[in-house]
Amino acid sequence: MSARDLSTLIPAARDGKPTLVIKNARVINVFTNEITEASVAIAGDTIIGVGNYSCENEFNAHGAYLAPGLIDGHVHIESSMVTPASFAQVILPKGTTTIIADPHEIANVSGADGLKAMFALSRGLPLDIRFMLPSCVPSTPFEHSGATLNAADLGAFLDEPNVLGLGEVMDYVSVVSCAPDMLEKLKRFYDRPIDGHAPMLTGKALNAYCVAGPRTDHECSNFRELKEKLRNGMYILIRMGSAANGVLEMLDGIVSEGLPTDRICFCTDDKHLENIRSEGHINHIVNTAISRGIRPLDALRMATLNTANAFGLSRIGAIAPGYRANLILFNNLHTIEPKTVFTNGVPFDATAPVPSPAVSDCVKNSVHAAPVTADDLKLPVQDFMPIIETVPHQLVTRLVYRVVPHDASGCFVASEGLNKLAVIERHHATGHVGVGIVDGMHVQGGAIGATVAHDSHNIVIVGDNDADMLFAVETLRRAGGGFTVVSNGEVKALLELPIAGLMSDAPVETVLEKQRALLDAARALGTDDACDPLVLLSFLALPVIPEARLTDCGLFDVSTMSFLYRT
Amino acid sequence: MSARDLSTLIPAARDGKPTLVIKNARVINVFTNEITEASVAIAGDTIIGVGNYSCENEFNAHGAYLAPGLIDGHVHIESSMVTPASFAQVILPKGTTTIIADPHEIANVSGADGLKAMFALSRGLPLDIRFMLPSCVPSTPFEHSGATLNAADLGAFLDEPNVLGLGEVMDYVSVVSCAPDMLEKLKRFYDRPIDGHAPMLTGKALNAYCVAGPRTDHECSNFRELKEKLRNGMYILIRMGSAANGVLEMLDGIVSEGLPTDRICFCTDDKHLENIRSEGHINHIVNTAISRGIRPLDALRMATLNTANAFGLSRIGAIAPGYRANLILFNNLHTIEPKTVFTNGVPFDATAPVPSPAVSDCVKNSVHAAPVTADDLKLPVQDFMPIIETVPHQLVTRLVYRVVPHDASGCFVASEGLNKLAVIERHHATGHVGVGIVDGMHVQGGAIGATVAHDSHNIVIVGDNDADMLFAVETLRRAGGGFTVVSNGEVKALLELPIAGLMSDAPVETVLEKQRALLDAARALGTDDACDPLVLLSFLALPVIPEARLTDCGLFDVSTMSFLYRT
Repeated sequence: MSARDLSTLIPAARDGKPTLVIKNARVINVFTNEITEASVAIAGDTIIGVGNYSCENEFNAHGAYLAPGLIDGHVHIESSMVTPASFAQVILPKGTTTIIADPHEIANVSGADGLKAMFALSRGLPLDIRFMLPSCVPSTPFEHSGATLNAADLGAFLDEPNVLGLGEVMDYVSVVSCAPDMLEKLKRFYDRPIDGHAPMLTGKALNAYCVAGPRTDHECSNFRELKEKLRNGMYILIRMGSAANGVLEMLDGIVSEGLPTDRICFCTDDKHLENIRSEGHINHIVNTAISRGIRPLDALRMATLNTANAFGLSRIGAIAPGYRANLILFNNLHTIEPKTVFTNGVPFDATAPVPSPAVSDCVKNSVHAAPVTADDLKLPVQDFMPIIETVPHQLVTRLVYRVVPHDASGCFVASEGLNKLAVIERHHATGHVGVGIVDGMHVQGGAIGATVAHDSHNIVIVGDNDADMLFAVETLRRAGGGFTVVSNGEVKALLELPIAGLMSDAPVETVLEKQRALLDAARALGTDDACDPLVLLSFLALPVIPEARLTDCGLFDVSTMSFLYRT
Repeated sequence: MSARDLSTLIPAARDGKPTLVIKNARVINVFTNEITEASVAIAGDTIIGVGNYSCENEFNAHGAYLAPGLIDGHVHIESSMVTPASFAQVILPKGTTTIIADPHEIANVSGADGLKAMFALSRGLPLDIRFMLPSCVPSTPFEHSGATLNAADLGAFLDEPNVLGLGEVMDYVSVVSCAPDMLEKLKRFYDRPIDGHAPMLTGKALNAYCVAGPRTDHECSNFRELKEKLRNGMYILIRMGSAANGVLEMLDGIVSEGLPTDRICFCTDDKHLENIRSEGHINHIVNTAISRGIRPLDALRMATLNTANAFGLSRIGAIAPGYRANLILFNNLHTIEPKTVFTNGVPFDATAPVPSPAVSDCVKNSVHAAPVTADDLKLPVQDFMPIIETVPHQLVTRLVYRVVPHDASGCFVASEGLNKLAVIERHHATGHVGVGIVDGMHVQGGAIGATVAHDSHNIVIVGDNDADMLFAVETLRRAGGGFTVVSNGEVKALLELPIAGLMSDAPVETVLEKQRALLDAARALGTDDACDPLVLLSFLALPVIPEARLTDCGLFDVSTMSFLYRT
């Protein structure tokens, strides 16, 4: 509903004239913690009453539970590699009807154009998408991103429909040290929701961060951290997506200490489409919470009303007159698997594809790398060479020093299990190329490359020979972005990501199929089960995760926040 | 704090450099329901940390409890008859540090000028005053008020600092029937807080009202009503001021059913200054709630964080970094009597008067009544004359029909315990005069008059002889508004209310003294203990309280919403 619908909705509610009635439901009221057997009356996209209703268009719930649609408090749609429409198609059947999205990835590639493209791609979908504006573009000064968004750039979007506030303020160093542009952003969004992102921040530094304005946090990884942030007034978004550190311990702490849950919510941040299909989405977190002893109605409220409150949304997250008719129907109060999901008052048909708005041209053809030659991939070695060592099943890496093989000219030769890693600036054809060494990827006889490389999304390539690495770059360039696995001059697998080099416009099933093919091809090159080599590769260029990372500027030591060498 | 203070507050929090430390307190955390022994660090007007702190300026709490300052969710300052500064002086010692004020009364007299005057009078006070813009000016079409505020008039104030949203939407008939100007107001404030006011509204009419936007209600008078409105998503403001219907029953219901309290708050609406002095203010409601079995920390949260949430205020109502340093210190967790109250980080000195900003000229000299003569007060009688009968200890009245005494010309003569009542239009000198008969006031040998006459605040006079009634009108006219008791052409008591005829600019003690003198003088005329004759008089012209009222247009039957006669 919008303000202009009041003149039809008020009479519909007053006169009891719904356009749809959901009959025989056990209706969950998140305000009173009650379950009542009733009908829910809907006019258009809005609930107009709970009680006794009938009309021509009735949906029989046959005694199933009816709850508000679930809300994901923090998610990056781009990380799913599909459009918002396709993302909707995957998560709606799991009961998530609203997401708070942070288009941080596309903004790092395409700046304000990227934001506009995401807003356009999100319009008119059955999924309710609200936006937090990315606060850290670029994420760090240690790499070259496609764009810079300063306070004034973000301010221009304040009145955009569905823009709520300022997205995760990852750069807590800038906050706590009062860096001028960060301060300017915080001032401009002073009266809006501001998302925090402050892993392990504690004590006075956390106090300073909270004074600065962030009011949510989705980075808690243990109960002690959760409790300190809750005490400080932050809404806690328990994250259970690709990352899910400490979730069980946090839930257990909440239960055992009887903490109030009304400022605790759920989010996924990033979650693989296949895992959403197999495990669920926000409902999976609800079910996990229930399994650890959170009362079902509390868990449902954490996934609905609490999140709406955290973001100041007053007409979603509950079943009451005036609330949007986003609803989920399910049989078992302890394991929520939606049978039917209503969005905007319409049962969602999971069998039909969700039509997507057109992709705007400004986010296509985003791969603008300068020509790369074998010379650009040369890496002169030192006696003890700093290299990146992967850690099984984790995204953190170790910084180690080794004697490494080299050729007659003193340049590194990938062998003895060591791979060459390259990060190639791809936004403004500056010719910046970072070259490094990685141990633990085990790529043999080929190369793997991607234009998804957090957070600046340059081209990242790992391989054991320069020819295949150069071929991978060319393959990605021709595809307009994506993921590829190549071997001996042949493309073994390719997922084209023509939207900013981050997202596909192909149907979900095609994307999933190509992702599986990529993984198979990577495995065929020797990568093992200790990691998803494609995900790991995407994170090797992110200079905020310990200990060593490669950017287009060189090899970076995250613990000292300085370059070990520049290339 | 404001956005521009971030550059000093962030470093103060980071480096642990407070300007004031409250030591040895038992600090109440409304987010986690914890009490911890700690110090609270404050920089300027803002809390920057809870823990171990010291600085040159320390305040020893000696182990007392420290809670956030209390919030009154709905109040009309004008009804206290003093300026916002004087009102602050009376309520701050009771621990109320923020009020959500609805300047409905002054708006009915002076329109937009009245609003501006109230904003100006509220600036820079130690009391945090937020405003809801009066939605119903005039309140009804059955009387003449001083001004009309339509949707555009209100919209002009949307960006005024401290304006939150739309004040109590009393005219629920207009809402439910989609009256165009009301709809326009609701649309304009669609994304802002809107206060409800819907006594006894239930079922589909309540649903329609909720769809329209009001998200709070302070008119519940029984638990059943409270629960229905809570289910419908309204924040409930339990009112305990001059009116306090059903409070105990509602509190008992909440306790016995174990209802969640996080959407239940407190307000006073109107409360006499003397009663605030003797009983308390919001702390009195907190104490009452505790005495009925609400847990003390829940009751405190109802009076702080919950109210802040209801109005979307993110930096008040808690003790946490970034929150305003409005705090109360008290010894007994079950009977909250503040020993010290901090506002904006400063202990409030209850012994010194709070300086008031200047009163703007546009709200002075507001009494513009046409000349009134004995002829204007003539009331031709009928065989069975409809009259207003008061009900002991209540503001409701009965409509009864009587044979009444009259003179040779067939006009009513006040005698046999019946008084004459007159309402004289006083805003635009239109000459409208309503004349009626009231039984139960028992005024003998004089008249009582006021320019406070809800909601249009015309002149209302009750008396037993026309000469004194006319003299009372002239006394009020000369005083520029107020309350008066006159007898035999002599002023027995007078409280001048030069600000819009509603508020005094005199010191609180002077106002209280004159109020007592007025009551004494009214008692001397024969009014009895069954009512406060001054309060009752102020409500006899309000055509929304059953059953019979007199406006400047005539005698009004509230149950049929029609005039019994026009004069």
